[in-house]
Amino acid sequence: PLCRSAAMKAPSSRAYSLSFSFVARTNTCGELRSAHVGQKVTLYGWIQYQRQGLFLVLRDFQGLTQIIIPQDEACSHVKKLLSNAPVESVVRVTGIVSLRPPGQENPKMPTGDIEVKVETAEILNSCRKLPFEIKDFIKKSEALRMQYRYLDLRSSQLQYNLRLRSQIVMRMREYLCNLHGFVDVETPTLFKRTPGGAKEFLVPSREAGKFYSLPQSPQQFKQLLMVGGLDRYFQVARCYRDEGSRPDRQPEFTQIDIEMSFVDQGGIQRLIEGLLQYSWPEERGPITTPFPSVTYEEALADYGTDKPDTRFDMKIVDISDFSRSLGIRFVQNALSYPHGTVKAICIPQGMRYLKNKDIESLKEAARSQFNQEIVDIICRPDGSLKSLLTKFLGQEQQSELVQALKMQVDDVVLLAAGEHKQVCSALGSLRVESADLLEAAGLVLRDPTAFHFLWVVDFPLFLPKEENPTELESAHHPFTAPHPSDMTLLYSDPTKVRSQHYDLVLNGNEVGGGSIRIHNAELQRFVLEKVLKEDSEVLSHLLDALEFGAPPHGGIALGLDRLISLIIGAPSIRDVIAFPKSFRGRDLMGSAPDYVTPEELESYHIQVSWPVAEAEAKKN
Amino acid sequence: PLCRSAAMKAPSSRAYSLSFSFVARTNTCGELRSAHVGQKVTLYGWIQYQRQGLFLVLRDFQGLTQIIIPQDEACSHVKKLLSNAPVESVVRVTGIVSLRPPGQENPKMPTGDIEVKVETAEILNSCRKLPFEIKDFIKKSEALRMQYRYLDLRSSQLQYNLRLRSQIVMRMREYLCNLHGFVDVETPTLFKRTPGGAKEFLVPSREAGKFYSLPQSPQQFKQLLMVGGLDRYFQVARCYRDEGSRPDRQPEFTQIDIEMSFVDQGGIQRLIEGLLQYSWPEERGPITTPFPSVTYEEALADYGTDKPDTRFDMKIVDISDFSRSLGIRFVQNALSYPHGTVKAICIPQGMRYLKNKDIESLKEAARSQFNQEIVDIICRPDGSLKSLLTKFLGQEQQSELVQALKMQVDDVVLLAAGEHKQVCSALGSLRVESADLLEAAGLVLRDPTAFHFLWVVDFPLFLPKEENPTELESAHHPFTAPHPSDMTLLYSDPTKVRSQHYDLVLNGNEVGGGSIRIHNAELQRFVLEKVLKEDSEVLSHLLDALEFGAPPHGGIALGLDRLISLIIGAPSIRDVIAFPKSFRGRDLMGSAPDYVTPEELESYHIQVSWPVAEAEAKKN
Repeated sequence: PLCRSAAMKAPSSRAYSLSFSFVARTNTCGELRSAHVGQKVTLYGWIQYQRQGLFLVLRDFQGLTQIIIPQDEACSHVKKLLSNAPVESVVRVTGIVSLRPPGQENPKMPTGDIEVKVETAEILNSCRKLPFEIKDFIKKSEALRMQYRYLDLRSSQLQYNLRLRSQIVMRMREYLCNLHGFVDVETPTLFKRTPGGAKEFLVPSREAGKFYSLPQSPQQFKQLLMVGGLDRYFQVARCYRDEGSRPDRQPEFTQIDIEMSFVDQGGIQRLIEGLLQYSWPEERGPITTPFPSVTYEEALADYGTDKPDTRFDMKIVDISDFSRSLGIRFVQNALSYPHGTVKAICIPQGMRYLKNKDIESLKEAARSQFNQEIVDIICRPDGSLKSLLTKFLGQEQQSELVQALKMQVDDVVLLAAGEHKQVCSALGSLRVESADLLEAAGLVLRDPTAFHFLWVVDFPLFLPKEENPTELESAHHPFTAPHPSDMTLLYSDPTKVRSQHYDLVLNGNEVGGGSIRIHNAELQRFVLEKVLKEDSEVLSHLLDALEFGAPPHGGIALGLDRLISLIIGAPSIRDVIAFPKSFRGRDLMGSAPDYVTPEELESYHIQVSWPVAEAEAKKN
Repeated sequence: PLCRSAAMKAPSSRAYSLSFSFVARTNTCGELRSAHVGQKVTLYGWIQYQRQGLFLVLRDFQGLTQIIIPQDEACSHVKKLLSNAPVESVVRVTGIVSLRPPGQENPKMPTGDIEVKVETAEILNSCRKLPFEIKDFIKKSEALRMQYRYLDLRSSQLQYNLRLRSQIVMRMREYLCNLHGFVDVETPTLFKRTPGGAKEFLVPSREAGKFYSLPQSPQQFKQLLMVGGLDRYFQVARCYRDEGSRPDRQPEFTQIDIEMSFVDQGGIQRLIEGLLQYSWPEERGPITTPFPSVTYEEALADYGTDKPDTRFDMKIVDISDFSRSLGIRFVQNALSYPHGTVKAICIPQGMRYLKNKDIESLKEAARSQFNQEIVDIICRPDGSLKSLLTKFLGQEQQSELVQALKMQVDDVVLLAAGEHKQVCSALGSLRVESADLLEAAGLVLRDPTAFHFLWVVDFPLFLPKEENPTELESAHHPFTAPHPSDMTLLYSDPTKVRSQHYDLVLNGNEVGGGSIRIHNAELQRFVLEKVLKEDSEVLSHLLDALEFGAPPHGGIALGLDRLISLIIGAPSIRDVIAFPKSFRGRDLMGSAPDYVTPEELESYHIQVSWPVAEAEAKKN
């Protein structure tokens, strides 16, 4: 609608002067009220709409103002100018603020009480015919919006997103820098490849065969800053990750990167809670601290994931004990294995909101993604159960089951038997999928204005490698410190060692992660060489540094793009980035990446290895 | 000396809480005073010095505190711990603040009235034997300091530099974001090559033959943001420039990047003056605004450079008119050419402070660097002149010359005849070189605490290409708007067109530059295609954007590394960067750039073209 950009107010967390300095404008287009009536004003903006040479609506980032085009002969040149200017042309108008005639006020517009009667006007730049109207932009294909990103940016939604992002980051800086003595230190992005850094972009140097690497995070540098006595470091850090095409990832992204000396896990958590509380935009309501905390094992058992969405219940229920007495073959079979378990989730009102094919597709998803069979149990209107299993259950067992799962009429239970982690993961995934299905069908399960933060702690320090489960890899990164209680296990059974890693989860999304680091060179060398079997030579500078009086330290990184998109409720991180890349890592506006000439490659001592097909094509 | 880090106080522009939250420390090492006597405190820090098991000096980023080691039997374990800990080990100490015994106060130390009597202590990390002492670091070779940068960072000077930098940038953000409504927008660093972007690093993509480019500045993006209605943009932007090895340049550097809509040159200048005044560190004294402004032509004529150091006089004096009447062959010859001129600078007290060989080396420099002959004139103690020229000058002409050049006894004049720009450049260079020589010899010419800002304006828009002077190139970049008064010249004689570019100069260093941009697509296309003869196709997205209602706009970029190093008085920008690269673009700590395996190059479809010698060597 016409006044969408007026309805979407500028972010309110900071009051700044609206009649800006350094320019000839007296006011912005969102600012004039009946109190301004009689004032002579000069506005700059874009023509949003123009009607029959009578009036136009002028837009800037602050809002909309109705401009009355003069009709008397003396001003015919102004009328001609403004009547002929195409929509989205940039104009300057000077005129007198007047009350709108009675009955013509627009209560939906903040400036709806007034209009500006133009005296002089200037077309600063005329606009070519648009490929679409700005207000319709949202309906256009994303590829088109990306190609004309500079037009998309004029939409009130993107204006709001980018301005709010700027303000939140500013508040974060105030909290860290002004209130808590953190030092904003810029670290290099041209560095060298980290071991196993397969996702790092390479940058050829002028030395033949030598490459810089664009780091995935300032991890090494922030630890070295702690060794250097910087004590409290932060940076809004640009990071790089070459993952090819993964949905909603960007090859370059931003993290709020933090490291502190002499701190423990609780210290970092309190710092981050304070940081978010301080920078939280007023219009999103307050958030309460401290955030709840669960262990990785609890999260897995209750939600089947390390990033639980705690805005709704539907927790995984363990019914192994109950099931042990049942004479059901596949159940007994599952329970006979180590970590064998029987678990279920209960979908409230599933019979009313889910179709049969929904339930079938949930079961199929568990089968294909987790190799996990699912049995469904339905609670009929009369309270009786409908399931493949009912024939194995006596009346009492049925009501025991109903009680254990807190089933009510029309609920649907999905039950799985098998290995603990597999069952949990499958049910955790079904939990979220069925919540999406319920909501798509009209049940309000998650409050769209709710923000549920959660710490997940006590992750395993190492995981078996997927391609060779007898070898271990770091669950996060090799600099993560072991849990103090598990130090001896490190030497006897490293798979059982918990780490001092912590993740911050918001509404089921990981928005941050960090850890207390290893600050002892001997321990770091043991982890790298003996547990991970990695060549520690490439990290010799870090190992050296730990020997020269490295303080105990820890830190965290918040994924800024993701965090802002969740605060705003944007469907994609691309909505909170001014110039995002497409799924395939392309800039559709400027056509990057692009071909370069062989001569341009010469000074970097590289040449393109054309794939056979292309090389052949070039020959012909 | 011992208390250097104490004498170098933490930057004072911001008062933040010293007893930091989130950690177990009660105080920092620079904080305790006699008012704290009797308090039980916990400090964390590095052992700076330890003497005979009696006391030690504990250091953190805030300062130094003297720690008394307990001598009674009951605390023998604490004594043993602290006596045996190597220097630079990290420790926690808890103890009671006490007054030092009378006569043992150290007035040079802010904490010099007190000492802390240790009750308990913990060695958090023991330090290996250092390759050098921290306090001696400054004397070591730069390569060694770079290799152990994390130790160098512990020096009070680098702590001060990085903390001050952080605070200045924070103040700049407050000014821009909170006081003047600027929006901090992050722009991509993976983009595509700009035309003529020979200094841009390449980043291979996973699409065969296609490369991203690391831009030298966000120039295109900030203009596109203006088209997108963002209105007031700023970013502390990481920029990249591959210049091989140029002294005191870094392959990645930081600029305060600013762009505004609806603004003129004066608006940007007032904004920047306010920005610097607001963020200026208190301890460097106030700066006055507005900054003086000179045209490019004036700067060249008076100082022989577009970045004049106005902290001292010694301006270039034009004596062409005076010289015209002299019967000196080379003078007449020079004046007969177009732009022929005779100019001179007067070196005050040159005879007292410069040796003959200094004067000869100045003349030789002019010859070798500018192909310019120089004649020297000396004012003898009796007021008479000594020069090759005196025989051509009558008594009256000699005193006219003395008057024109304001020569005094012992002054040395360097005189040059030739083409205007060449003469000015040569004398401008000699002006700075002789000032350096005078100061090296003990004359105080430039106040080391003075900050002289200067705007240089009205640059030429185009310059003849060095390799082919009949063709033109942009003096700055092709988006710079012509001076409004010179618009018609653009079509008749583009070499005469002045631009709306402005440079900000501080003490003879360029610390910023910007311009009002072309916002009209037709004009931009004319400049690109007709004047610069460039293929505008690669900039089609920008030309398109200008057609869709681009507002008039302009901006500026400040070189942050250079600015901070000048404020601090650091000899190199490397002193204000946490992890700088060496002259040759190497990271000497982590050894970047480095070799990668051919397999790692495969996914980027590139291979190394080894230079012949290396390829041969590899064969054998």
